[in-house]
Amino acid sequence: MASNGAREPLLPQSPDPAPPKTNGQVSRRRYLRCRSAPLANVDPPEKTDIGSIHRFDSILGKLHPSFRTVALYLIGYLGIGAVIFYLVRHQITGKKTEGVLDAIYFTIVTMTTVGYGDLVPNSDLTKLLACAFVFTGMALVGLILSKAADYLVEKQEALIIKALHGNHEVGPTKILQEAEVNRKWYKFFVVFVLLVALIIMGTIFLVAVEKLDVIDAFYCVCCTITTLGYGDKSFSSEGGRVFAVFWILTGTICLAQLFLCIAEMNTEKRRKEITEMVLKRRITIADLEAADIDHDGTVGVAEFIIYKLKEMGKISQEDIALIMQQFEELDVDQSGTLSPSDLTLAQAPWPS
Amino acid sequence: MASNGAREPLLPQSPDPAPPKTNGQVSRRRYLRCRSAPLANVDPPEKTDIGSIHRFDSILGKLHPSFRTVALYLIGYLGIGAVIFYLVRHQITGKKTEGVLDAIYFTIVTMTTVGYGDLVPNSDLTKLLACAFVFTGMALVGLILSKAADYLVEKQEALIIKALHGNHEVGPTKILQEAEVNRKWYKFFVVFVLLVALIIMGTIFLVAVEKLDVIDAFYCVCCTITTLGYGDKSFSSEGGRVFAVFWILTGTICLAQLFLCIAEMNTEKRRKEITEMVLKRRITIADLEAADIDHDGTVGVAEFIIYKLKEMGKISQEDIALIMQQFEELDVDQSGTLSPSDLTLAQAPWPS
Repeated sequence: MASNGAREPLLPQSPDPAPPKTNGQVSRRRYLRCRSAPLANVDPPEKTDIGSIHRFDSILGKLHPSFRTVALYLIGYLGIGAVIFYLVRHQITGKKTEGVLDAIYFTIVTMTTVGYGDLVPNSDLTKLLACAFVFTGMALVGLILSKAADYLVEKQEALIIKALHGNHEVGPTKILQEAEVNRKWYKFFVVFVLLVALIIMGTIFLVAVEKLDVIDAFYCVCCTITTLGYGDKSFSSEGGRVFAVFWILTGTICLAQLFLCIAEMNTEKRRKEITEMVLKRRITIADLEAADIDHDGTVGVAEFIIYKLKEMGKISQEDIALIMQQFEELDVDQSGTLSPSDLTLAQAPWPS
Repeated sequence: MASNGAREPLLPQSPDPAPPKTNGQVSRRRYLRCRSAPLANVDPPEKTDIGSIHRFDSILGKLHPSFRTVALYLIGYLGIGAVIFYLVRHQITGKKTEGVLDAIYFTIVTMTTVGYGDLVPNSDLTKLLACAFVFTGMALVGLILSKAADYLVEKQEALIIKALHGNHEVGPTKILQEAEVNRKWYKFFVVFVLLVALIIMGTIFLVAVEKLDVIDAFYCVCCTITTLGYGDKSFSSEGGRVFAVFWILTGTICLAQLFLCIAEMNTEKRRKEITEMVLKRRITIADLEAADIDHDGTVGVAEFIIYKLKEMGKISQEDIALIMQQFEELDVDQSGTLSPSDLTLAQAPWPS
């Protein structure tokens, strides 16, 4: 990814330790950009796994790998919950329907912290079990939330890259900015539409199957997706609980995701304001002095970028210092620039 | 902050447009660092307000300004909730104690989504009111969570700056790294200790005042702080509800904060792994080519830093492109470096 065959090498391939002199006459007004620094692969083992997904034909197999991991956790959690609460079903009181279904329903109502109270533990053992399940359930819901966000973002990433590739000459900055804004709005839009659909679906279902009137049905929907769960209205029929098992989980996660989206959009807006503020600020001579990292008396474009990024709060002194340390280790001839010969001298030969 | 009187100016103060030549003989092995780029002030209007806090003598006045804003929202929310639910108290059924207290208690139980169900709305009006209050309550709890984190972090910031200042010669990188790790652990520790204290306090209170046995009390505590709220055990006495009003809010927020802490520490750990991976990777000639932002055939320390930061995913092409644009606007003489004369030519005179 980092090497592009079509481009001519800009650095001399000779092992001359002295850095090549700048002639100062290179055309400066062409569009400058830091080319093709590859983004670090966050989850390499998972990514290399993508190819193997197609071996499965199940729905689970077709899911995104990080989603699949979460789905497996969820199935494991619900499976263990169902078995345990089925075994102790006589120590749980309330409105009961079918044994296994009630156990799964109770697990879902507990893990999402809806806690209607239509089924309640009534022994010390089941009470402590419920405590254990609610804490682990919260952690699992948190995991689902973070992974769902990753998934949506990654799906959009492809579109952005395509947009960038197709319009390379028209100004990548603008496209990137728009893609970034669009991505956030797209995510918000998807989650919002899904949530409205789930609210309507839940209301209709409660009216049709649980025989509630419309206000009561809507009230029960709101009590559920917010995890409020007073419990005066809940799913008490067998059909209702089958629906509830799927609907409660998607509904609560969808609403939480919407709140996360709004929070992200707020953060993004604030960050954009800071960026604009930093970019609009007058540059003084004191700024030039402070930006001169290599103390050579001039501020190049890269030094300027680092100074501004630091001012924006996007990078910290720690980030810079660690990389500087590596630079100094690599810069064997202490010329202040890296040359191919520096690399040869500083880095041990490839292990054979 | 950006100008330091004790330091001699590194840039020539003459309006000579040609960049000063590097002599290549400057001592390179001294510790390089990008000096004193000021962090952008995130909330300037709030910050300038700090001085005015001391005019108030109340507890509220002594709080951190962003905390004060949230406290005002919270008081407003609880006040409105108390008034409204007091007015419609005859349309709420369940275990009742004193009118105003019940209204506040109901508001708290609703906003935190605990939703015991010991008090439930039983008219269309109160049901829709509860829906409105749970949504706004969730948003408010989210705000409290984010501000509480800010507060804890800012409190630590002072310690870090002090550590840096006191040990300037011993290696700022190490101190910054340790401070970063310590800050996360400190926050986790504070929240954890507070949560354990709240759990013990709640359990003892429920045993002493609500006359529950120890397991039931602990179970009710867990049901509450996780916002599960089955409602089979809740605060039914007048004294219990006074305690509950304060305890439920702090307990639920404390647990959510602990989960956030753990998530942050995980993110931090992953980020550190990526940083290490990027720093350990062999540098190839192709990397040098890609890192050469200004196309002058050499890779200086600043270019190297930007390349590595990009590889770590800490900065994006968008960030770089925007600042580059500003650089090109400022670099009037197109020398590829900024000089004081560039600044004079590019920036309009100060408005008088």
